[in-house]
Amino acid sequence: MFAQTPAPPYYSVIFTSQRRADDSLAGYDAMAERMVELAAQQPGFLGIESARNAEGFGITVSYWASLEAISAWKANTEHRVAQANGRRFWYQHFELRIARVERANSSEAS
Amino acid sequence: MFAQTPAPPYYSVIFTSQRRADDSLAGYDAMAERMVELAAQQPGFLGIESARNAEGFGITVSYWASLEAISAWKANTEHRVAQANGRRFWYQHFELRIARVERANSSEAS
Repeated sequence: MFAQTPAPPYYSVIFTSQRRADDSLAGYDAMAERMVELAAQQPGFLGIESARNAEGFGITVSYWASLEAISAWKANTEHRVAQANGRRFWYQHFELRIARVERANSSEAS
Repeated sequence: MFAQTPAPPYYSVIFTSQRRADDSLAGYDAMAERMVELAAQQPGFLGIESARNAEGFGITVSYWASLEAISAWKANTEHRVAQANGRRFWYQHFELRIARVERANSSEAS
């Protein structure tokens, strides 16, 4: 569940989202799983961490080697379809932030 | 649940953690709530977003105006006690990353 990332610097995409309470479109879980699988195949992918609570509020952080890798992932055809479905059906609201990781620490390291 | 952040650049602290299955120490929820309350009083605090799933894996992202604001929050006395309790009692493992937010987008904006 934890991403095994290299020493900084690298990039992160912080995606926070609220799922619709009434989303009747089947396939969200399958889509989410497929997107993780697909992201992991992209050049520059470093890892992903994700949590969603019982109220449907979730945070997914994916880690990337460069901004170019993030742009390529954003432009991926199958990912574009998922993005469109997300806007149309699955998410009530989301925020997406791209951030450069400058420092990192884990509970074992310090 | 969504943070209302200004236009980038600003900083984020990405804290991913796995809670212990056997954590018997009472007070985790109260501590977590108190830390959000306390963080919100710190200079340079911009917002916070948090989600934990049923398996105890959680992501909290807090947003800050500067690295100095993050350092001051890290050094806060009451926060230090919570950090020590987290290591000792509450978390099986955690990762902490400091990242500079360079771009941001929301579902309404695009």
